[in-house]
Amino acid sequence: LSGGSRDARPAVTPVAAVLPAGGSGERLGGATPKQFCAVQGRPLVSYAVRAMERISWISDIIVVVSPENIETMKSIIEKYGHKRVMIVKGGITRHRSIFNGLKVFAENEFSNHLLQKPEVVIIHDAVRPFVEEDILSKVVMAAKEHGAAGAIRPLVSTVIASAADGCLDHSLERARYRASEMPQAFLFDTIYEAYQQCTDYDLDYGTECLHLALKYCNTSAKLVEGTADLWKVTYKRDLYAAESIIKDNLSQQVCVITNVKEAVAQVGFLLHESLKNQIKVEAVSISLSKNDSHLQNIFSGQCYNFICVNDRKYAIQETQQLVDMLEKSSIPLLYPVVLILVHLDISENISFSIGMEELTRIKKFAREVKKKNILVYGLLIQYK
Amino acid sequence: LSGGSRDARPAVTPVAAVLPAGGSGERLGGATPKQFCAVQGRPLVSYAVRAMERISWISDIIVVVSPENIETMKSIIEKYGHKRVMIVKGGITRHRSIFNGLKVFAENEFSNHLLQKPEVVIIHDAVRPFVEEDILSKVVMAAKEHGAAGAIRPLVSTVIASAADGCLDHSLERARYRASEMPQAFLFDTIYEAYQQCTDYDLDYGTECLHLALKYCNTSAKLVEGTADLWKVTYKRDLYAAESIIKDNLSQQVCVITNVKEAVAQVGFLLHESLKNQIKVEAVSISLSKNDSHLQNIFSGQCYNFICVNDRKYAIQETQQLVDMLEKSSIPLLYPVVLILVHLDISENISFSIGMEELTRIKKFAREVKKKNILVYGLLIQYK
Repeated sequence: LSGGSRDARPAVTPVAAVLPAGGSGERLGGATPKQFCAVQGRPLVSYAVRAMERISWISDIIVVVSPENIETMKSIIEKYGHKRVMIVKGGITRHRSIFNGLKVFAENEFSNHLLQKPEVVIIHDAVRPFVEEDILSKVVMAAKEHGAAGAIRPLVSTVIASAADGCLDHSLERARYRASEMPQAFLFDTIYEAYQQCTDYDLDYGTECLHLALKYCNTSAKLVEGTADLWKVTYKRDLYAAESIIKDNLSQQVCVITNVKEAVAQVGFLLHESLKNQIKVEAVSISLSKNDSHLQNIFSGQCYNFICVNDRKYAIQETQQLVDMLEKSSIPLLYPVVLILVHLDISENISFSIGMEELTRIKKFAREVKKKNILVYGLLIQYK
Repeated sequence: LSGGSRDARPAVTPVAAVLPAGGSGERLGGATPKQFCAVQGRPLVSYAVRAMERISWISDIIVVVSPENIETMKSIIEKYGHKRVMIVKGGITRHRSIFNGLKVFAENEFSNHLLQKPEVVIIHDAVRPFVEEDILSKVVMAAKEHGAAGAIRPLVSTVIASAADGCLDHSLERARYRASEMPQAFLFDTIYEAYQQCTDYDLDYGTECLHLALKYCNTSAKLVEGTADLWKVTYKRDLYAAESIIKDNLSQQVCVITNVKEAVAQVGFLLHESLKNQIKVEAVSISLSKNDSHLQNIFSGQCYNFICVNDRKYAIQETQQLVDMLEKSSIPLLYPVVLILVHLDISENISFSIGMEELTRIKKFAREVKKKNILVYGLLIQYK
């Protein structure tokens, strides 16, 4: 492929994303549709939106939800501070919902101003929370070249056809077939034309966008091998699996940040020594306020865990500074960042107390940044 | 179907089971083959074996493992006290391994005495740990009638065929196709003949037993809809999912057992009162040694969690009695039984101490019964 620049950005093509999130989740066996089920306290759809919004070259993210969930979706966007997202009312089937999502670029039906029509549109499920930039970039570039593209995976089980009597008719040769997964990408004009020409039967009973592009526009999609993480959250067990993927993807490095006071720096050194056999410890004894470029280097080394040791009580201001830097550096926050604030009491007092007011402040801060996928923990240590 | 008796036992047909467990687990990305990976501390293959052995009408369970894992498998059988199990050396492919497993009923190649040839043989994967008696019974009865039968599931993803250029050739109509899962069952003579006639190509590259029965014996398998729990542990995330299924299947009832002393019975009553809003509490204040029929009723009500309150220190003898009764009652122990021993100290002593020797005895007891899937926890309560 010729379109790839060094940072995997698919040239300067305008790209948008449509996330159908209208499913009823009946296979989960619960009342909550699966896209709104929480994994580590955050709804699945928020992971999928975040996976899109952290990619700078995706301009608009259209989330299509059923009418009764529009308010829920609005509150999710507000709570987690999602940007570049527009909510569109879904139809009664998956294809009708996707079609509605595409219309915001071409018709006035769902908004009083049209969004800028993208050259390529990504279609991705709200229940596939862990899509990486690499595969998105690959399907977008392939769609630019071929008109359509989609991620595929090997089949886990043999696929069989049953006869009318409920007996085996034939089994498919596994090597010839693939599971069609998401993300998929299309030249906007191609998929939009396919939907415009689509019969009611296909709109009601079909599910596969690649099929529509082939049938109505004679566009044969390029198939791109995806990673195992692309699987679809379908059953209740998949929610637990999603949690395991989050845990597996936590950064395996930690940065110990201390201010320059001797006692504090010493604790940082001891911490470094005792941690280094268990986890990669990236840096110690730097001053948070003075050494931004050093921290930028640490971010770009994919170290997203921080232990901030301080001898001032509740150094929220410094921590806020770190959070701001994390946000500005536009590192991927698809998986949690862990921030441990250690308050080192080096006074001679035997006991220390925590004021209710200060405690409330810390808790509020932790609640706020949790929405940004930054988990803050606090620790008080008496040190002599 | 005519063969089903009240207890889902497929008439008096002799039934055996072959569990191919020779896979290398490369998709898990780890060194340990997935069938030997631990879920809640127990290897997956042990769950699959237990799922078979707890069913009284399955006579022999043949586990086929690759030569390098025979010792591992032997130690698993010993550790977890599995019965009616024979280990057979696997071949280099799945089909060759299953064929080896079948040979113990017909040839002298793998043992110096032939096992009694079953009428029906179940083939099930070691990496599908949660197979229930109901589906096993259904496939066995269907195999008796049709010669072959297999569990199926709806497809989660659309299946597509790719053309030589890596582009979409066509997508399959999802409703017409199913995923072929396990368990499968066959008339022994049918599947054994299929394997005997099987070409080297099919033995090396095929995976689907239903296909062999159709191709070599013209036996078209009856397809039986299975439950979602039949899925195959394939990726690392599936190990976490397996854990979630175990948790979901824990008994939602608890039985509080106390002896008849007034203070103890009173605690049992208080426990009952405080628990009853959160979990179904089945019975209180019965004496363990005197009321066996009462406990049998509790077992058959699918209550597999017990809180034993006692004022004697470390009532291991009584607890052992309960464990024996659990085992004798042949209740399904596919999912853990939870046993909480509460030692109630009603003496006037301010402090109590635990002797190292007694602690060691309790720990040893807990370790032993854990192999039987009974989890023992201890609690010391000072009560005045």
